[in-house]
Amino acid sequence: MRHATHIADLGVEGLEAVLSQALAWKRGPHPKHLVEKILGLVFFNPSLRTRSSFEAVMLRGGGHAVVLEVGGGVWKLEDREGAVMDSDRSEHLKEAVPVLGRFLDGLAVRTFAANVDDDADNADPVISGFRKYSSVPVISMESAREHPCQGLADILTARETFGSTKQLPVTLAWAPHIKPLPKAVPNSFLLSAAAAGCEVRVAHPKGFDLHPSVLAEAERYASESGGSVSITHDLDAALSDSRVVYAKAWGPATRLGLGPENVKAHPEWLTSRAHMEKASKDAIFMHCLPVRRNVEVSDEVLDHASCRVVDEAENRFHVQRALVDWVLNGK
Amino acid sequence: MRHATHIADLGVEGLEAVLSQALAWKRGPHPKHLVEKILGLVFFNPSLRTRSSFEAVMLRGGGHAVVLEVGGGVWKLEDREGAVMDSDRSEHLKEAVPVLGRFLDGLAVRTFAANVDDDADNADPVISGFRKYSSVPVISMESAREHPCQGLADILTARETFGSTKQLPVTLAWAPHIKPLPKAVPNSFLLSAAAAGCEVRVAHPKGFDLHPSVLAEAERYASESGGSVSITHDLDAALSDSRVVYAKAWGPATRLGLGPENVKAHPEWLTSRAHMEKASKDAIFMHCLPVRRNVEVSDEVLDHASCRVVDEAENRFHVQRALVDWVLNGK
Amino acid sequence: MRHATHIADLGVEGLEAVLSQALAWKRGPHPKHLVEKILGLVFFNPSLRTRSSFEAVMLRGGGHAVVLEVGGGVWKLEDREGAVMDSDRSEHLKEAVPVLGRFLDGLAVRTFAANVDDDADNADPVISGFRKYSSVPVISMESAREHPCQGLADILTARETFGSTKQLPVTLAWAPHIKPLPKAVPNSFLLSAAAAGCEVRVAHPKGFDLHPSVLAEAERYASESGGSVSITHDLDAALSDSRVVYAKAWGPATRLGLGPENVKAHPEWLTSRAHMEKASKDAIFMHCLPVRRNVEVSDEVLDHASCRVVDEAENRFHVQRALVDWVLNGK
Repeated sequence: MRHATHIADLGVEGLEAVLSQALAWKRGPHPKHLVEKILGLVFFNPSLRTRSSFEAVMLRGGGHAVVLEVGGGVWKLEDREGAVMDSDRSEHLKEAVPVLGRFLDGLAVRTFAANVDDDADNADPVISGFRKYSSVPVISMESAREHPCQGLADILTARETFGSTKQLPVTLAWAPHIKPLPKAVPNSFLLSAAAAGCEVRVAHPKGFDLHPSVLAEAERYASESGGSVSITHDLDAALSDSRVVYAKAWGPATRLGLGPENVKAHPEWLTSRAHMEKASKDAIFMHCLPVRRNVEVSDEVLDHASCRVVDEAENRFHVQRALVDWVLNGK
Repeated sequence: MRHATHIADLGVEGLEAVLSQALAWKRGPHPKHLVEKILGLVFFNPSLRTRSSFEAVMLRGGGHAVVLEVGGGVWKLEDREGAVMDSDRSEHLKEAVPVLGRFLDGLAVRTFAANVDDDADNADPVISGFRKYSSVPVISMESAREHPCQGLADILTARETFGSTKQLPVTLAWAPHIKPLPKAVPNSFLLSAAAAGCEVRVAHPKGFDLHPSVLAEAERYASESGGSVSITHDLDAALSDSRVVYAKAWGPATRLGLGPENVKAHPEWLTSRAHMEKASKDAIFMHCLPVRRNVEVSDEVLDHASCRVVDEAENRFHVQRALVDWVLNGK
Repeated sequence: MRHATHIADLGVEGLEAVLSQALAWKRGPHPKHLVEKILGLVFFNPSLRTRSSFEAVMLRGGGHAVVLEVGGGVWKLEDREGAVMDSDRSEHLKEAVPVLGRFLDGLAVRTFAANVDDDADNADPVISGFRKYSSVPVISMESAREHPCQGLADILTARETFGSTKQLPVTLAWAPHIKPLPKAVPNSFLLSAAAAGCEVRVAHPKGFDLHPSVLAEAERYASESGGSVSITHDLDAALSDSRVVYAKAWGPATRLGLGPENVKAHPEWLTSRAHMEKASKDAIFMHCLPVRRNVEVSDEVLDHASCRVVDEAENRFHVQRALVDWVLNGK
């Protein structure tokens, strides 16, 4: 049985297989490959693209999705072993997850980082609990550590534009926000781009480091794929000659000494046309969405012809179709 | 590409086409005309009839609906151009709408009036934003200015009862409520009835005028269809010989000088059997639902044989089936 | 037209028919028996198992479910006759229920006990209103008085384990909780087990009596099925030689003189391995879920091989498939 909750579940080989399948089905007719399959979509957090694209994947493949909103229409869930369950979490994953597996053919889960302790988020407690207790495949719709479907869609978008991602210079540029955001998306872009052979440049202000375990994993993928990873606080240097500018807000590496106010303390990192003009002339702009216009990125960047955010979002559908197939129909 | 967000999208001719199709499919077998179609149902506000009837339309036609609740399971959406997005609205229609169009075949939208400024509501900012940014057809499930599916269902109900609506005397009677309600439903009944050739009488207390642009549009439809429109503060005169009594609460024309307390200041407008007895002997009672019993309308009116509110609600299904076909399968 | 909101709708004969069908379809291939059927799932309260299992029943049978969350995405509903509707309940069952029946083929309803007055809950006002006003079959997904699908799943689980439930000693053991819970589940286990011919032992502390009308109804079923019902405050005696230990928290018989603090006043009723060891050596442990670990039941009981809670939950799917068939396709 396969799970797909982290890029490590795919590895370089699996990532290439899913991307090839996604592109083939995007360009040609695709089969009704999900007939009689029901995928549970378990949301601990809100969603627009993820929910509608996963439902579309299941329906267009001939299957169905069942949506469960934890803490909304569904009981809150406990994940801690040995807990005396006297809080507002009225059901344990130990019961909820195996039960869902008796009704459904797979479980896709969205559960954001608690965003209090980077080490705890990096250990990914909720989606790890789903993997541990599930009798059916588990797919990530974004968890504390990663958002692999987003990373796959990002790489597909870059490949459609430039033909190949081998040694492609791409810049992951930190962006300001009104609050500290989770690191799942920057982690996943970094991991996916490294696994796809890109020359990845991560640029952020001091204090906003990604987790060492993610950086080490990205290095491993880069050495396997022929790519590279570099980290810098110099945004201009990171943008120079880059073909992809990927803006993303995320919170500080630790809350100690870095309050939320520091998230707004770097307005010069708001991506503007001046930033784009430092990159390659054919550079495209990418962002996972939702994006706060004129907080993270200026209107003129988002409304420019080089902006690919809608195509990138469409590719969520295409990579998820291939990923669900890889998980539910794979060996 | 067709949209159906306002009666003006149909015009007199389109309205007749949709009503004819609705009646034909209600009376006979209807085809699986929506196979492979997925309609997104985007709710900014709650719904019972609308949600269940649109889902039923898609499923019985062989297609599917995907439900998205904005501000519930889905991010809140910004519609203002050039906004610095530092509020609780974390995504702009400029991104959200085109993205949904990549996954889905059409977008049905419910977004109530802000009910603060009649001119602003009449301009219908949210659904206009959907039309502007969407690459797929947009259907109204009620917006700030109109609720065209309700208007169509109302006319179908009157036609089923009386055979024709040409010169049919119908009365739109303002009703009290616990709070000021939007004007989309009275606007749509007025516009639809005028386009269907009715002799429309609108009766309301002073200060509750409908928007001048709606009245002017209704006049244009009446002159084309052979109907007429009149406005009065004299409910008894408006009821005299009327064949349809349509009760509906709505708020004042402007908040200036007319607080919410004034909404309850006209208890004599609560529709009772005494009102019905002033109308034609064969008059039917209609209301869009939900209705607050004994606040807007008395139990004895709603429980009387002349009450058609459930048939009227059923007709939402029939007209929506025809309207979705007109939009998704039309030329 | 059949409803299935209470065990009394089935009686001993109907219960046997549904259980036989459920077991036959669980063991062999099952037909697409729900093609073209749409079941509305109306939730006044949250759900995990019930929602996902009912959706799975409809989809795997070739039909569909439409989910409506009252007070969430759907208007709050009034059930009182003659109410002046000036509260936050903006629609009456008198309109909402017949309207839903025009769009959908059946209505499944979840509505918890108000838990203030046992007599009021025993009269089951909301689901009774659905039955009264519906033109299509009504199915309970748990109401104030009963949760018949749970009761049926419980009996199926016992029969799968022991072959027969005739004279099978089963113990319904009250359990502590952080708050007073409704009595629908203990009522349904008692009624179902009595109708299935079990020797039912109900054990609870003083002051937690089930409603006299439920006890009388269980006695009637037991006399018809060859079973028996006994009530005791002596848990050890009730466990002796029992084959099924069914733990369940519920609130006091009346709020007078028994505050919520009394719910926690009996920690010795938390089901532990010491309790299980007083029962028969082959005894199984059952619970309807969600269960609060180490508040109602200890980890060691729930993680022991004799625990059947996941199988029991799976059986919700199987009995509901047969029950929906009995209701929608029955004579």
